[in-house]
Amino acid sequence: MAKISVEEARRFRAGEDFAIGSIDPAATPGVDADGLEDAFSHYDEDIARLQEMLYARGRAGDDDAGAVLLVLQGMDTSGKGGIVRHVVGEVMDVQGVHLASFGRPTEEEARHDFLWRFQPHLPRPGQVAVWDRSHYEDVLVQRVKKMAPPEEIDRRYNAIVEFERSLARSGTRVIKVMPHISREYQAENLRERLCNPEKFWKYNPGDIEDRALWPEYMEAYEIAVRRTSTDEAPWYCIPSDNKRYCRTVVKTLLYDALSSLDLAWPEADFDPEVELRRLENA
Amino acid sequence: MAKISVEEARRFRAGEDFAIGSIDPAATPGVDADGLEDAFSHYDEDIARLQEMLYARGRAGDDDAGAVLLVLQGMDTSGKGGIVRHVVGEVMDVQGVHLASFGRPTEEEARHDFLWRFQPHLPRPGQVAVWDRSHYEDVLVQRVKKMAPPEEIDRRYNAIVEFERSLARSGTRVIKVMPHISREYQAENLRERLCNPEKFWKYNPGDIEDRALWPEYMEAYEIAVRRTSTDEAPWYCIPSDNKRYCRTVVKTLLYDALSSLDLAWPEADFDPEVELRRLENA
Repeated sequence: MAKISVEEARRFRAGEDFAIGSIDPAATPGVDADGLEDAFSHYDEDIARLQEMLYARGRAGDDDAGAVLLVLQGMDTSGKGGIVRHVVGEVMDVQGVHLASFGRPTEEEARHDFLWRFQPHLPRPGQVAVWDRSHYEDVLVQRVKKMAPPEEIDRRYNAIVEFERSLARSGTRVIKVMPHISREYQAENLRERLCNPEKFWKYNPGDIEDRALWPEYMEAYEIAVRRTSTDEAPWYCIPSDNKRYCRTVVKTLLYDALSSLDLAWPEADFDPEVELRRLENA
Repeated sequence: MAKISVEEARRFRAGEDFAIGSIDPAATPGVDADGLEDAFSHYDEDIARLQEMLYARGRAGDDDAGAVLLVLQGMDTSGKGGIVRHVVGEVMDVQGVHLASFGRPTEEEARHDFLWRFQPHLPRPGQVAVWDRSHYEDVLVQRVKKMAPPEEIDRRYNAIVEFERSLARSGTRVIKVMPHISREYQAENLRERLCNPEKFWKYNPGDIEDRALWPEYMEAYEIAVRRTSTDEAPWYCIPSDNKRYCRTVVKTLLYDALSSLDLAWPEADFDPEVELRRLENA
Protein backbone atom coordinates (compact mmCIF):
# COMPACT_ATOMS: atom_id res chain seq x y z
CA MET A 1 0.00 0.00 0.00
CA ALA A 2 1.30 3.42 -0.95
CA LYS A 3 2.24 5.79 1.83
CA ILE A 4 4.46 8.70 2.69
CA SER A 5 6.87 7.34 5.25
CA VAL A 6 7.92 9.13 8.39
CA GLU A 7 11.38 9.59 6.89
CA GLU A 8 9.93 11.14 3.75
CA ALA A 9 7.73 13.52 5.73
CA ARG A 10 10.63 14.57 7.92
CA ARG A 11 12.51 15.66 4.81
CA PHE A 12 10.28 18.71 4.66
CA ARG A 13 11.80 19.89 7.86
CA ALA A 14 13.28 23.33 7.38
CA GLY A 15 16.26 24.67 9.28
CA GLU A 16 18.58 27.64 9.62
CA ASP A 17 19.55 27.53 5.96
CA PHE A 18 15.97 27.28 4.71
CA ALA A 19 15.49 28.70 1.21
CA ILE A 20 11.86 28.95 0.30
CA GLY A 21 12.75 29.04 -3.41
CA SER A 22 14.09 25.51 -3.13
CA ILE A 23 10.63 24.07 -2.48
CA ASP A 24 8.47 23.43 -5.53
CA PRO A 25 4.85 23.94 -4.41
CA ALA A 26 3.62 21.62 -7.16
CA ALA A 27 5.88 18.67 -6.31
CA THR A 28 4.56 15.48 -4.74
CA PRO A 29 7.74 13.60 -3.83
CA GLY A 30 7.40 10.02 -2.71
CA VAL A 31 4.02 9.27 -4.23
CA ASP A 32 2.36 9.56 -7.63
CA ALA A 33 -1.24 10.57 -8.33
CA ASP A 34 -2.45 6.96 -8.25
CA GLY A 35 -0.75 6.19 -4.98
CA LEU A 36 -1.99 9.33 -3.28
CA GLU A 37 -5.50 8.03 -2.77
CA ASP A 38 -4.16 5.07 -0.77
CA ALA A 39 -1.46 7.03 0.96
CA PHE A 40 -3.97 9.57 2.22
CA SER A 41 -5.60 7.05 4.56
CA HIS A 42 -2.53 5.02 5.42
CA TYR A 43 -2.06 6.27 8.99
CA ASP A 44 -5.70 6.95 9.85
CA GLU A 45 -6.20 3.97 12.13
CA ASP A 46 -2.89 4.44 13.88
CA ILE A 47 -3.51 8.14 14.42
CA ALA A 48 -7.01 7.47 15.72
CA ARG A 49 -5.75 4.85 18.15
CA LEU A 50 -2.79 6.86 19.41
CA GLN A 51 -4.89 9.97 19.83
CA GLU A 52 -7.50 8.03 21.77
CA MET A 53 -4.74 6.73 24.01
CA LEU A 54 -3.45 10.26 24.52
CA TYR A 55 -6.94 11.50 25.30
CA ALA A 56 -7.47 8.56 27.66
CA ARG A 57 -4.31 9.42 29.57
CA GLY A 58 -5.42 13.02 29.91
CA ARG A 59 -8.86 11.95 31.10
CA ALA A 60 -7.28 9.59 33.59
CA GLY A 61 -5.57 12.62 35.14
CA ASP A 62 -2.06 11.90 33.92
CA ASP A 63 -0.34 15.29 33.91
CA ASP A 64 2.59 13.78 32.05
CA ALA A 65 0.38 12.43 29.28
CA GLY A 66 1.96 14.80 26.80
CA ALA A 67 0.16 16.84 24.17
CA VAL A 68 0.48 17.95 20.57
CA LEU A 69 0.32 21.44 19.13
CA LEU A 70 -0.11 21.64 15.37
CA VAL A 71 0.50 25.14 14.04
CA LEU A 72 -0.82 25.88 10.56
CA GLN A 73 0.53 29.02 9.00
CA GLY A 74 0.32 29.72 5.30
CA MET A 75 -0.91 32.16 2.68
CA ASP A 76 -4.61 32.64 1.91
CA THR A 77 -6.14 29.57 0.19
CA SER A 78 -3.15 27.39 1.09
CA GLY A 79 -5.47 24.81 2.65
CA LYS A 80 -5.24 25.40 6.40
CA GLY A 81 -8.98 24.97 6.88
CA GLY A 82 -8.94 21.79 4.80
CA ILE A 83 -6.27 20.31 7.06
CA VAL A 84 -8.37 21.10 10.11
CA ARG A 85 -11.41 19.52 8.55
CA HIS A 86 -10.06 16.53 6.67
CA VAL A 87 -6.96 15.60 8.63
CA VAL A 88 -7.91 16.46 12.17
CA GLY A 89 -11.72 16.42 12.15
CA GLU A 90 -12.17 13.26 10.13
CA VAL A 91 -9.49 11.17 11.78
CA MET A 92 -9.29 12.19 15.41
CA ASP A 93 -11.86 12.04 18.17
CA VAL A 94 -12.93 15.66 18.41
CA GLN A 95 -13.36 15.28 22.16
CA GLY A 96 -9.59 15.37 22.53
CA VAL A 97 -9.00 18.21 20.09
CA HIS A 98 -8.77 21.91 20.84
CA LEU A 99 -9.14 24.13 17.77
CA ALA A 100 -8.40 27.81 17.60
CA SER A 101 -8.11 30.24 14.75
CA PHE A 102 -6.45 33.61 14.98
CA GLY A 103 -7.05 36.75 13.01
CA ARG A 104 -6.18 40.32 13.73
CA PRO A 105 -5.83 40.84 17.51
CA THR A 106 -8.65 42.61 19.31
CA GLU A 107 -7.95 45.93 20.97
CA GLU A 108 -7.53 44.26 24.33
CA GLU A 109 -5.23 41.59 22.93
CA ALA A 110 -3.11 44.23 21.22
CA ARG A 111 -2.53 45.90 24.57
CA HIS A 112 -0.84 42.76 25.93
CA ASP A 113 2.41 41.11 24.90
CA PHE A 114 1.87 39.42 21.53
CA LEU A 115 2.01 35.91 23.03
CA TRP A 116 -0.72 36.62 25.58
CA ARG A 117 -3.72 35.75 23.46
CA PHE A 118 -2.41 32.28 22.64
CA GLN A 119 -2.12 31.06 26.23
CA PRO A 120 -5.75 29.97 26.63
CA HIS A 121 -5.41 27.82 23.52
CA LEU A 122 -2.44 25.71 24.56
CA PRO A 123 -3.25 22.00 24.72
CA ARG A 124 -3.83 20.49 28.13
CA PRO A 125 -2.15 17.13 28.83
CA GLY A 126 -3.92 14.61 26.59
CA GLN A 127 -5.06 17.14 24.02
CA VAL A 128 -4.17 17.86 20.42
CA ALA A 129 -4.42 21.60 19.78
CA VAL A 130 -4.61 22.90 16.24
CA TRP A 131 -4.03 26.55 15.45
CA ASP A 132 -5.28 27.96 12.18
CA ARG A 133 -2.86 30.88 11.95
CA SER A 134 -0.87 31.57 15.06
CA HIS A 135 1.67 33.65 16.92
CA TYR A 136 3.57 33.76 13.64
CA GLU A 137 1.12 36.41 12.40
CA ASP A 138 3.12 38.73 14.63
CA VAL A 139 6.30 38.24 12.61
CA LEU A 140 4.66 37.77 9.20
CA VAL A 141 1.82 40.18 8.42
CA GLN A 142 3.16 42.52 11.10
CA ARG A 143 6.56 42.55 9.47
CA VAL A 144 5.31 42.85 5.91
CA LYS A 145 2.87 45.63 6.74
CA LYS A 146 5.25 47.31 9.18
CA MET A 147 2.73 47.11 11.98
CA ALA A 148 5.53 46.84 14.54
CA PRO A 149 9.04 48.38 14.58
CA PRO A 150 11.93 46.21 13.32
CA GLU A 151 13.48 45.88 16.81
CA GLU A 152 10.19 44.56 18.15
CA ILE A 153 9.85 42.03 15.31
CA ASP A 154 13.42 41.01 15.95
CA ARG A 155 12.73 40.47 19.65
CA ARG A 156 9.71 38.33 18.81
CA TYR A 157 11.66 35.62 17.01
CA ASN A 158 13.58 34.93 20.19
CA ALA A 159 10.48 35.19 22.32
CA ILE A 160 8.81 32.60 20.09
CA VAL A 161 11.75 30.23 20.36
CA GLU A 162 11.66 30.51 24.15
CA PHE A 163 7.89 30.12 24.27
CA GLU A 164 7.94 26.98 22.15
CA ARG A 165 10.91 25.59 24.05
CA SER A 166 8.97 25.83 27.28
CA LEU A 167 6.03 24.04 25.66
CA ALA A 168 8.29 21.24 24.50
CA ARG A 169 9.83 21.01 27.95
CA SER A 170 6.41 20.52 29.50
CA GLY A 171 5.75 17.58 27.18
CA THR A 172 4.03 19.15 24.18
CA ARG A 173 5.12 18.07 20.71
CA VAL A 174 5.10 21.18 18.57
CA ILE A 175 4.69 20.73 14.79
CA LYS A 176 4.71 23.83 12.65
CA VAL A 177 3.41 23.46 9.14
CA MET A 178 3.59 25.91 6.30
CA PRO A 179 1.44 24.65 3.44
CA HIS A 180 3.36 26.19 0.57
CA ILE A 181 1.43 27.16 -2.56
CA SER A 182 2.47 28.97 -5.72
CA ARG A 183 1.19 32.42 -6.55
CA GLU A 184 -0.45 30.95 -9.66
CA TYR A 185 -2.31 28.33 -7.66
CA GLN A 186 -3.57 31.00 -5.29
CA ALA A 187 -4.98 32.90 -8.28
CA GLU A 188 -6.86 29.75 -9.34
CA ASN A 189 -8.28 29.33 -5.85
CA LEU A 190 -9.34 32.95 -5.54
CA ARG A 191 -10.94 32.81 -8.99
CA GLU A 192 -12.91 29.78 -7.91
CA ARG A 193 -14.15 31.62 -4.82
CA LEU A 194 -15.20 34.58 -6.93
CA CYS A 195 -17.06 32.50 -9.50
CA ASN A 196 -19.07 30.38 -7.07
CA PRO A 197 -21.65 32.12 -4.85
CA GLU A 198 -21.31 29.23 -2.37
CA LYS A 199 -17.71 30.29 -1.86
CA PHE A 200 -18.07 34.08 -1.72
CA TRP A 201 -17.85 33.94 2.07
CA LYS A 202 -14.33 32.59 1.86
CA TYR A 203 -13.20 35.60 -0.11
CA ASN A 204 -12.01 38.86 1.32
CA PRO A 205 -11.01 41.85 -0.83
CA GLY A 206 -7.99 42.21 1.44
CA ASP A 207 -6.68 38.94 -0.02
CA ILE A 208 -5.67 40.87 -3.16
CA GLU A 209 -3.61 43.35 -1.15
CA ASP A 210 -1.76 40.50 0.55
CA ARG A 211 -1.27 38.86 -2.82
CA ALA A 212 0.40 41.99 -4.16
CA LEU A 213 2.91 41.63 -1.34
CA TRP A 214 3.75 38.01 -2.22
CA PRO A 215 7.56 38.44 -2.43
CA GLU A 216 7.57 40.32 0.88
CA TYR A 217 5.53 37.55 2.49
CA MET A 218 7.82 34.84 1.13
CA GLU A 219 10.79 36.70 2.54
CA ALA A 220 9.06 37.06 5.92
CA TYR A 221 8.25 33.33 5.97
CA GLU A 222 11.81 32.45 5.07
CA ILE A 223 13.23 34.56 7.86
CA ALA A 224 10.66 33.36 10.41
CA VAL A 225 11.33 29.71 9.57
CA ARG A 226 15.10 30.17 9.71
CA ARG A 227 14.98 31.86 13.06
CA THR A 228 12.42 29.67 14.78
CA SER A 229 12.84 26.15 13.41
CA THR A 230 14.34 24.32 16.36
CA ASP A 231 14.73 20.72 17.43
CA GLU A 232 11.94 21.28 19.94
CA ALA A 233 9.60 22.94 17.49
CA PRO A 234 10.57 22.27 13.89
CA TRP A 235 9.01 23.87 10.83
CA TYR A 236 7.85 21.83 7.87
CA CYS A 237 7.38 23.61 4.56
CA ILE A 238 5.13 21.31 2.53
CA PRO A 239 4.26 21.57 -1.17
CA SER A 240 0.53 22.28 -1.32
CA ASP A 241 -0.55 23.02 -4.84
CA ASN A 242 -1.84 19.46 -4.48
CA LYS A 243 -3.89 19.82 -1.31
CA ARG A 244 -4.29 16.12 -0.81
CA TYR A 245 -0.54 15.69 -0.91
CA CYS A 246 -0.03 18.25 1.83
CA ARG A 247 -2.75 16.67 3.97
CA THR A 248 -1.12 13.29 3.57
CA VAL A 249 2.23 14.61 4.76
CA VAL A 250 0.58 16.31 7.73
CA LYS A 251 -1.00 13.01 8.70
CA THR A 252 2.41 11.37 8.64
CA LEU A 253 3.83 14.13 10.83
CA LEU A 254 0.97 13.74 13.31
CA TYR A 255 1.54 10.01 13.36
CA ASP A 256 5.23 10.63 14.00
CA ALA A 257 4.52 13.08 16.84
CA LEU A 258 1.96 10.85 18.51
CA SER A 259 4.24 7.82 18.24
CA SER A 260 7.08 9.72 19.86
CA LEU A 261 4.98 10.18 23.01
CA ASP A 262 5.41 6.45 23.78
CA LEU A 263 1.80 6.12 24.78
CA ALA A 264 0.14 3.23 26.54
CA TRP A 265 -3.39 2.81 27.82
CA PRO A 266 -3.69 4.24 31.32
CA GLU A 267 -3.57 1.70 34.11
CA ALA A 268 -6.59 1.11 36.27
CA ASP A 269 -6.62 2.87 39.63
CA PHE A 270 -9.06 0.20 40.80
CA ASP A 271 -9.03 -3.58 40.94
CA PRO A 272 -11.05 -4.81 37.93
CA GLU A 273 -11.88 -8.11 39.70
CA VAL A 274 -13.27 -6.31 42.72
CA GLU A 275 -15.27 -3.98 40.51
CA LEU A 276 -16.69 -6.85 38.48
CA ARG A 277 -17.94 -8.40 41.71
CA ARG A 278 -19.39 -5.07 42.81
CA LEU A 279 -21.14 -4.85 39.44
CA GLU A 280 -22.64 -8.34 39.71
CA ASN A 281 -23.94 -7.57 43.20
CA ALA A 282 -25.27 -4.10 42.47
CA MET B 1 -33.08 4.21 0.91
CA ALA B 2 -33.94 3.55 4.54
CA LYS B 3 -34.06 6.54 6.83
CA ILE B 4 -35.65 7.84 9.99
CA SER B 5 -37.84 10.69 8.85
CA VAL B 6 -38.11 14.02 10.61
CA GLU B 7 -41.64 13.10 11.68
CA GLU B 8 -40.45 9.81 13.16
CA ALA B 9 -37.64 11.50 15.05
CA ARG B 10 -39.98 14.16 16.41
CA ARG B 11 -42.12 11.43 17.94
CA PHE B 12 -39.46 11.03 20.62
CA ARG B 13 -40.27 14.48 21.84
CA ALA B 14 -41.27 14.34 25.47
CA GLY B 15 -43.69 16.73 27.13
CA GLU B 16 -45.46 17.52 30.39
CA ASP B 17 -46.94 14.04 30.60
CA PHE B 18 -43.66 12.25 29.91
CA ALA B 19 -43.52 8.78 31.47
CA ILE B 20 -40.06 7.30 31.22
CA GLY B 21 -41.47 3.80 31.65
CA SER B 22 -43.29 4.16 28.35
CA ILE B 23 -40.04 4.21 26.38
CA ASP B 24 -38.49 0.84 25.61
CA PRO B 25 -34.72 1.40 25.50
CA ALA B 26 -34.29 -1.59 23.18
CA ALA B 27 -36.82 -0.51 20.56
CA THR B 28 -35.80 0.75 17.13
CA PRO B 29 -39.05 2.08 15.70
CA GLY B 30 -39.12 3.01 12.04
CA VAL B 31 -36.17 0.95 10.89
CA ASP B 32 -35.01 -2.65 11.16
CA ALA B 33 -31.45 -3.87 11.65
CA ASP B 34 -30.82 -4.13 7.90
CA GLY B 35 -32.11 -0.66 7.19
CA LEU B 36 -30.16 0.94 10.00
CA GLU B 37 -26.86 0.85 8.17
CA ASP B 38 -28.32 2.95 5.32
CA ALA B 39 -30.41 5.12 7.57
CA PHE B 40 -27.37 6.07 9.62
CA SER B 41 -25.81 8.03 6.75
CA HIS B 42 -29.00 9.30 5.15
CA TYR B 43 -28.73 12.93 6.24
CA ASP B 44 -24.93 13.24 6.33
CA GLU B 45 -24.56 15.31 3.18
CA ASP B 46 -27.46 17.58 4.06
CA ILE B 47 -26.20 18.13 7.57
CA ALA B 48 -22.69 18.85 6.31
CA ARG B 49 -23.97 21.35 3.76
CA LEU B 50 -26.35 23.12 6.13
CA GLN B 51 -23.75 23.32 8.85
CA GLU B 52 -21.22 24.75 6.43
CA MET B 53 -23.79 27.36 5.44
CA LEU B 54 -24.40 28.19 9.09
CA TYR B 55 -20.68 28.45 9.74
CA ALA B 56 -20.28 30.59 6.63
CA ARG B 57 -22.95 33.01 7.85
CA GLY B 58 -21.23 33.28 11.20
CA ARG B 59 -17.87 33.88 9.56
CA ALA B 60 -19.42 36.52 7.33
CA GLY B 61 -20.35 38.40 10.50
CA ASP B 62 -24.10 37.74 10.39
CA ASP B 63 -25.23 38.11 14.00
CA ASP B 64 -28.60 36.69 13.04
CA ALA B 65 -27.08 33.56 11.53
CA GLY B 66 -28.63 31.45 14.25
CA ALA B 67 -26.95 28.63 16.13
CA VAL B 68 -27.62 25.16 17.48
CA LEU B 69 -27.14 23.83 20.99
CA LEU B 70 -27.25 20.07 21.34
CA VAL B 71 -27.50 18.97 24.97
CA LEU B 72 -26.62 15.35 25.71
CA GLN B 73 -27.69 14.13 29.10
CA GLY B 74 -27.93 10.46 29.98
CA MET B 75 -26.74 7.76 32.35
CA ASP B 76 -23.16 6.43 32.31
CA THR B 77 -22.41 4.41 29.15
CA SER B 78 -25.52 5.69 27.38
CA GLY B 79 -23.44 6.77 24.41
CA LYS B 80 -23.00 10.52 24.81
CA GLY B 81 -19.35 10.39 23.80
CA GLY B 82 -20.20 8.25 20.79
CA ILE B 83 -22.70 10.85 19.60
CA VAL B 84 -20.07 13.55 19.90
CA ARG B 85 -17.60 11.48 17.96
CA HIS B 86 -19.66 9.73 15.32
CA VAL B 87 -22.53 12.14 14.76
CA VAL B 88 -20.92 15.51 15.26
CA GLY B 89 -17.22 14.87 14.65
CA GLU B 90 -17.58 12.71 11.59
CA VAL B 91 -20.28 14.69 9.82
CA MET B 92 -19.76 18.35 10.63
CA ASP B 93 -16.88 20.66 9.94
CA VAL B 94 -15.23 20.85 13.35
CA GLN B 95 -14.29 24.46 12.70
CA GLY B 96 -17.89 25.44 13.35
CA VAL B 97 -18.40 23.19 16.35
CA HIS B 98 -17.93 24.10 20.00
CA LEU B 99 -17.68 21.09 22.31
CA ALA B 100 -17.87 21.18 26.06
CA SER B 101 -18.19 18.49 28.67
CA PHE B 102 -19.25 19.10 32.22
CA GLY B 103 -18.48 17.17 35.35
CA ARG B 104 -18.65 18.12 38.96
CA PRO B 105 -18.36 21.94 39.32
CA THR B 106 -15.04 23.33 40.53
CA GLU B 107 -14.99 25.19 43.81
CA GLU B 108 -15.14 28.51 42.05
CA GLU B 109 -18.02 27.40 39.85
CA ALA B 110 -19.93 26.14 42.85
CA ARG B 111 -19.75 29.58 44.39
CA HIS B 112 -21.68 31.08 41.48
CA ASP B 113 -25.26 30.51 40.37
CA PHE B 114 -25.51 27.06 38.82
CA LEU B 115 -25.96 28.44 35.30
CA TRP B 116 -22.82 30.56 35.45
CA ARG B 117 -20.33 27.97 34.26
CA PHE B 118 -22.26 27.24 31.08
CA GLN B 119 -22.21 30.77 29.70
CA PRO B 120 -18.76 30.58 28.08
CA HIS B 121 -19.90 27.50 26.18
CA LEU B 122 -22.97 28.90 24.48
CA PRO B 123 -22.73 28.81 20.70
CA ARG B 124 -21.88 32.02 18.92
CA PRO B 125 -23.93 32.87 15.82
CA GLY B 126 -22.96 30.31 13.19
CA GLN B 127 -21.82 27.66 15.67
CA VAL B 128 -23.11 24.29 16.71
CA ALA B 129 -22.39 23.75 20.40
CA VAL B 130 -22.52 20.27 21.86
CA TRP B 131 -22.64 19.70 25.59
CA ASP B 132 -21.69 16.32 27.00
CA ARG B 133 -23.66 16.56 30.25
CA SER B 134 -25.02 19.97 31.04
CA HIS B 135 -26.89 22.29 33.38
CA TYR B 136 -29.23 19.35 33.97
CA GLU B 137 -26.61 17.83 36.26
CA ASP B 138 -27.86 20.42 38.72
CA VAL B 139 -31.34 18.91 38.85
CA LEU B 140 -30.32 15.27 38.32
CA VAL B 141 -27.29 14.15 40.33
CA GLN B 142 -27.83 17.09 42.68
CA ARG B 143 -31.40 15.99 43.30
CA VAL B 144 -30.65 12.29 43.62
CA LYS B 145 -27.73 12.82 45.95
CA LYS B 146 -29.43 15.65 47.82
CA MET B 147 -26.57 18.02 47.10
CA ALA B 148 -28.96 20.98 47.11
CA PRO B 149 -32.14 21.60 49.14
CA PRO B 150 -35.49 20.77 47.49
CA GLU B 151 -36.54 24.43 47.19
CA GLU B 152 -33.33 25.19 45.33
CA ILE B 153 -33.82 22.26 42.96
CA ASP B 154 -37.37 23.42 42.42
CA ARG B 155 -36.22 26.93 41.58
CA ARG B 156 -33.73 25.56 39.07
CA TYR B 157 -36.33 24.01 36.77
CA ASN B 158 -37.84 27.42 36.21
CA ALA B 159 -34.45 29.05 35.88
CA ILE B 160 -33.56 26.50 33.21
CA VAL B 161 -36.76 27.15 31.29
CA GLU B 162 -36.05 30.88 31.33
CA PHE B 163 -32.42 30.38 30.39
CA GLU B 164 -33.29 28.21 27.43
CA ARG B 165 -36.10 30.51 26.36
CA SER B 166 -33.68 33.39 26.13
CA LEU B 167 -31.33 31.27 24.03
CA ALA B 168 -34.14 30.38 21.68
CA ARG B 169 -35.17 34.02 21.46
CA SER B 170 -31.69 34.99 20.39
CA GLY B 171 -31.83 32.51 17.52
CA THR B 172 -30.36 29.33 18.99
CA ARG B 173 -32.12 26.05 18.28
CA VAL B 174 -31.92 24.02 21.47
CA ILE B 175 -32.16 20.22 21.20
CA LYS B 176 -32.02 18.20 24.39
CA VAL B 177 -31.33 14.53 24.03
CA MET B 178 -31.58 11.83 26.66
CA PRO B 179 -30.08 8.63 25.24
CA HIS B 180 -32.15 6.16 27.22
CA ILE B 181 -30.58 2.80 28.07
CA SER B 182 -31.79 -0.09 30.19
CA ARG B 183 -30.15 -1.01 33.45
CA GLU B 184 -29.22 -4.38 31.92
CA TYR B 185 -27.53 -2.78 28.95
CA GLN B 186 -25.54 -0.56 31.27
CA ALA B 187 -24.29 -3.67 33.09
CA GLU B 188 -23.11 -5.11 29.77
CA ASN B 189 -21.27 -1.90 28.95
CA LEU B 190 -19.63 -1.66 32.35
CA ARG B 191 -18.61 -5.31 32.16
CA GLU B 192 -16.98 -4.65 28.80
CA ARG B 193 -15.04 -1.74 30.26
CA LEU B 194 -13.86 -3.89 33.15
CA CYS B 195 -12.76 -6.78 30.97
CA ASN B 196 -10.78 -4.79 28.43
CA PRO B 197 -7.64 -2.95 29.64
CA GLU B 198 -8.05 -0.55 26.70
CA LYS B 199 -11.31 0.57 28.26
CA PHE B 200 -10.35 0.78 31.93
CA TRP B 201 -10.00 4.55 31.60
CA LYS B 202 -13.68 4.86 30.81
CA TYR B 203 -14.63 3.18 34.07
CA ASN B 204 -15.06 4.89 37.37
CA PRO B 205 -15.89 3.05 40.61
CA GLY B 206 -18.46 5.78 41.28
CA ASP B 207 -20.46 4.41 38.34
CA ILE B 208 -21.62 1.55 40.58
CA GLU B 209 -22.95 3.94 43.21
CA ASP B 210 -24.94 5.81 40.57
CA ARG B 211 -26.18 2.50 39.22
CA ALA B 212 -27.53 1.55 42.63
CA LEU B 213 -29.59 4.72 42.48
CA TRP B 214 -31.12 3.86 39.09
CA PRO B 215 -34.79 4.28 40.09
CA GLU B 216 -34.01 7.60 41.75
CA TYR B 217 -32.22 8.77 38.63
CA MET B 218 -35.08 7.68 36.39
CA GLU B 219 -37.47 9.63 38.55
CA ALA B 220 -35.24 12.69 38.48
CA TYR B 221 -35.01 12.49 34.68
CA GLU B 222 -38.75 12.13 34.38
CA ILE B 223 -39.39 15.20 36.50
CA ALA B 224 -36.70 17.25 34.80
CA VAL B 225 -38.04 16.40 31.36
CA ARG B 226 -41.63 17.16 32.34
CA ARG B 227 -40.75 20.49 33.81
CA THR B 228 -38.33 21.71 31.16
CA SER B 229 -39.49 20.32 27.84
CA THR B 230 -40.80 23.40 26.07
CA ASP B 231 -41.59 24.40 22.50
CA GLU B 232 -38.42 26.47 22.51
CA ALA B 233 -36.22 23.72 23.94
CA PRO B 234 -37.80 20.30 23.63
CA TRP B 235 -36.49 17.11 25.18
CA TYR B 236 -36.13 13.92 23.15
CA CYS B 237 -35.89 10.63 25.02
CA ILE B 238 -34.35 8.20 22.55
CA PRO B 239 -34.02 4.42 22.88
CA SER B 240 -30.29 3.72 23.03
CA ASP B 241 -29.65 0.08 23.80
CA ASN B 242 -28.90 0.13 20.08
CA LYS B 243 -26.36 2.94 19.95
CA ARG B 244 -26.48 3.25 16.21
CA TYR B 245 -30.22 3.72 16.35
CA CYS B 246 -29.90 6.60 18.80
CA ARG B 247 -27.18 8.21 16.72
CA THR B 248 -29.35 7.97 13.64
CA VAL B 249 -32.23 9.73 15.39
CA VAL B 250 -29.91 12.46 16.64
CA LYS B 251 -28.74 13.04 13.08
CA THR B 252 -32.34 13.47 11.98
CA LEU B 253 -32.95 15.95 14.78
CA LEU B 254 -29.86 17.91 13.84
CA TYR B 255 -30.98 17.95 10.24
CA ASP B 256 -34.40 19.18 11.36
CA ALA B 257 -32.91 21.95 13.51
CA LEU B 258 -30.49 23.12 10.83
CA SER B 259 -33.25 23.11 8.20
CA SER B 260 -35.46 25.22 10.41
CA LEU B 261 -32.87 28.01 10.36
CA ASP B 262 -33.77 28.72 6.71
CA LEU B 263 -30.15 29.12 5.78
CA ALA B 264 -28.72 30.50 2.59
CA TRP B 265 -25.15 31.20 1.57
CA PRO B 266 -24.11 34.65 2.74
CA GLU B 267 -24.21 37.33 0.09
CA ALA B 268 -21.03 38.97 -1.06
CA ASP B 269 -20.24 42.35 0.46
CA PHE B 270 -18.09 43.03 -2.61
CA ASP B 271 -18.68 43.02 -6.34
CA PRO B 272 -17.37 39.70 -7.70
CA GLU B 273 -16.82 41.19 -11.18
CA VAL B 274 -14.73 44.01 -9.79
CA GLU B 275 -12.74 41.59 -7.64
CA LEU B 276 -12.10 39.27 -10.57
CA ARG B 277 -10.64 42.19 -12.49
CA ARG B 278 -8.52 43.18 -9.51
CA LEU B 279 -7.30 39.60 -9.34
CA GLU B 280 -6.34 39.49 -13.02
CA ASN B 281 -4.43 42.77 -12.69
CA ALA B 282 -2.73 41.97 -9.41
